[in-house]
Amino acid sequence: MTGTAAGVLARAVALGEISEEPGRLTRRFATGALRAAGDLVGEWMAAAGMEVRRDDAGNVVGRYAGTGGDARPPFVLGSHLDTVPGAGRYDGVLGVLVSVAVVERLVTRSERLAFPLEVAAFADEEGARFGVAYLGSTAYAGLFEPAWLHLVDESGTTVTDAVRSLGDDPDALLRASQPTLSGYLEVHIEQGPVLEHEDLPVGVVTAISGRTRASIGLRGQAGHAGTLPMPWRRDALAAAAEAVLAVEEIGGREDGLVATVGMLSVEPGAANVVPGAATFSLDVRHVDDRARGRATGQMLEVISRIAATRQVELDWEVLHETPAVAMAPWLRERLAEAIGAEGLRATSLVSGAGHDAVVLARVCDAAMLFVRCAGGISHDPRESVDEADVAVAIDVVERFLLGEGLARPSLETR
Amino acid sequence: MTGTAAGVLARAVALGEISEEPGRLTRRFATGALRAAGDLVGEWMAAAGMEVRRDDAGNVVGRYAGTGGDARPPFVLGSHLDTVPGAGRYDGVLGVLVSVAVVERLVTRSERLAFPLEVAAFADEEGARFGVAYLGSTAYAGLFEPAWLHLVDESGTTVTDAVRSLGDDPDALLRASQPTLSGYLEVHIEQGPVLEHEDLPVGVVTAISGRTRASIGLRGQAGHAGTLPMPWRRDALAAAAEAVLAVEEIGGREDGLVATVGMLSVEPGAANVVPGAATFSLDVRHVDDRARGRATGQMLEVISRIAATRQVELDWEVLHETPAVAMAPWLRERLAEAIGAEGLRATSLVSGAGHDAVVLARVCDAAMLFVRCAGGISHDPRESVDEADVAVAIDVVERFLLGEGLARPSLETR
Repeated sequence: MTGTAAGVLARAVALGEISEEPGRLTRRFATGALRAAGDLVGEWMAAAGMEVRRDDAGNVVGRYAGTGGDARPPFVLGSHLDTVPGAGRYDGVLGVLVSVAVVERLVTRSERLAFPLEVAAFADEEGARFGVAYLGSTAYAGLFEPAWLHLVDESGTTVTDAVRSLGDDPDALLRASQPTLSGYLEVHIEQGPVLEHEDLPVGVVTAISGRTRASIGLRGQAGHAGTLPMPWRRDALAAAAEAVLAVEEIGGREDGLVATVGMLSVEPGAANVVPGAATFSLDVRHVDDRARGRATGQMLEVISRIAATRQVELDWEVLHETPAVAMAPWLRERLAEAIGAEGLRATSLVSGAGHDAVVLARVCDAAMLFVRCAGGISHDPRESVDEADVAVAIDVVERFLLGEGLARPSLETR
Repeated sequence: MTGTAAGVLARAVALGEISEEPGRLTRRFATGALRAAGDLVGEWMAAAGMEVRRDDAGNVVGRYAGTGGDARPPFVLGSHLDTVPGAGRYDGVLGVLVSVAVVERLVTRSERLAFPLEVAAFADEEGARFGVAYLGSTAYAGLFEPAWLHLVDESGTTVTDAVRSLGDDPDALLRASQPTLSGYLEVHIEQGPVLEHEDLPVGVVTAISGRTRASIGLRGQAGHAGTLPMPWRRDALAAAAEAVLAVEEIGGREDGLVATVGMLSVEPGAANVVPGAATFSLDVRHVDDRARGRATGQMLEVISRIAATRQVELDWEVLHETPAVAMAPWLRERLAEAIGAEGLRATSLVSGAGHDAVVLARVCDAAMLFVRCAGGISHDPRESVDEADVAVAIDVVERFLLGEGLARPSLETR
């Protein structure tokens, strides 16, 4: 079963049983469940002939030496083992297991690459426990920020205490230096419907979208639903409704742009009271940061006008802005070649979700291979991938690693 | 101080201290606080020379005998002593205290009417404890429904047990027969901004609006906010936003119509998830039941079209429909005459909120006098009335009772 898609899926099932809670899959940073999952993956890595290490963030890394010893920096394959609460089995896990399977294939044929290969199973990508994403990959990449040690989870436990509870040293997360890497490739389920729509098993990610997150408050005047005449109302929910439709309309103006209002709350929130206040979330993404900025600016402009017309106060708070991250063109080309060599059309697509590749792209060239997932569903127990698609992913990554271009000349001249 | 507006306001302050909870005014049906408030009002009634009785629902009724003994049925003045949680001091209480003050004036002058006068302080109009309104006035009017004995409050206590806890007999609520009454007049704060807008202290209510309450569910498809392209979305919140605006637009089409979406919730309700479902409340009121039916029908039609266009499932559940209640024209005329005799313009207005008059109108002719309240605010500690306006209300009710028309000929020929 080693090195096969069936083996990958069997291991995903096994990892899916390792959870913080019974009955559903939840495996967050610095928990016993994550530790156990990392240990199991480490065993598979070791069994495949890799040298395994575990850092104090809980990242488990297997190293497969190349023919050139340590003369060349390692190329890294990886993804994450942590999950959201109530997760599916494949988000993150698939990329780790496909990477292990590729090494198993190389080992089976006693084939070594010209450079060391590392398979990284990162300990935190979702940020589900402490609200900040990438606590695992930033530690690996020497980018962990000191303030993050003081983040607290919902029970008041700090990152420091959580790391210590597993016998690890929180200060070691800060001491890690930026590694020298020759590149990074992450295999991940698409978490969207594009590959299914195009009837393709895999696709090459061009870039990871930049994202603006904002919280928008509208304050009007509450009133009695039975006694306040319509023309005198300053209904905050009606204003928010106009704003939601403006977000949708502007979000549809440009190809590749997505804009979402996912949360909305009303105050006081009683059937017989005209809403006095409404608050909603805004999430805008695009691979072109200027396009995202343009769209967000248009939304602010239109919603300001709505608020003024309705005599409602507007509070526009940008919570978070992350720029788009381009995947390295030369790695995308090698991936496309590998896909072509499998007799498949190499389609390109954008990642609307964040991934560990965002972090790794800060220290080396990075690329991502998306694998089709059923219905584009993720963060849900219904997450599902086809065995045949997984087999294609293993083949493509293997070809990618063995291809001429990866080892030379690009790698040495970048 | 008896018989004066200043006395009424001082008593409202005293009653405002009698609450179920410290720091804010909450006085619900069949609680110790309501009992204490009723006892205090009963003392004022007795001191004024009224014969006081308290029924098993906790209604406190003072009777001031007329010159004709019991030959004529009593005319009733009244309102309620219960409140919503976190209430103001005047909703309900004002009508009871103005009525007591009017009797005090009559007594001071040793003036008796040709008919008995009752002042009723009802024990439940808000329905804040058991979710069903008018548990007090229906008991008084012989209209209490057997099923209501089994209603439970949030702690699981039934109406039966709550009534018993005060030493009262729940079965007595069912045994009460419909009284023969010659009419009912309720003084109440407007709970709306119309009188303030017209710069008038009081106004005559023409009718109490009928009301449709519905719960509307829209079910689309949840998805990842970063990966689901805009054209493929079936966003339940965007559909709900269109529906909210349709409710507002249709609500504004006819004079006197009000339509409100006061509650709205989104599932799953995360910033990075396209909403899969949205649920919202609908409240439509008009004094003309056909106008209300027409508006509600238009809303259903437009929202069905929105749902079909967006491929979202619509669930339209009517929770409650109450017809409009007209105030008796002859009583409205007497009220208007009394207001005119005070040198004021007698304006007419609609009650968008329900009142005990809805119940009393089922057993006798009923009328309401609205008193201006600051900013139209009610159900809030900021509820406020002007002493001068209260003085006008006392004068108007006194004139109304003493006027020719009330005792004859209308009363006997109806």
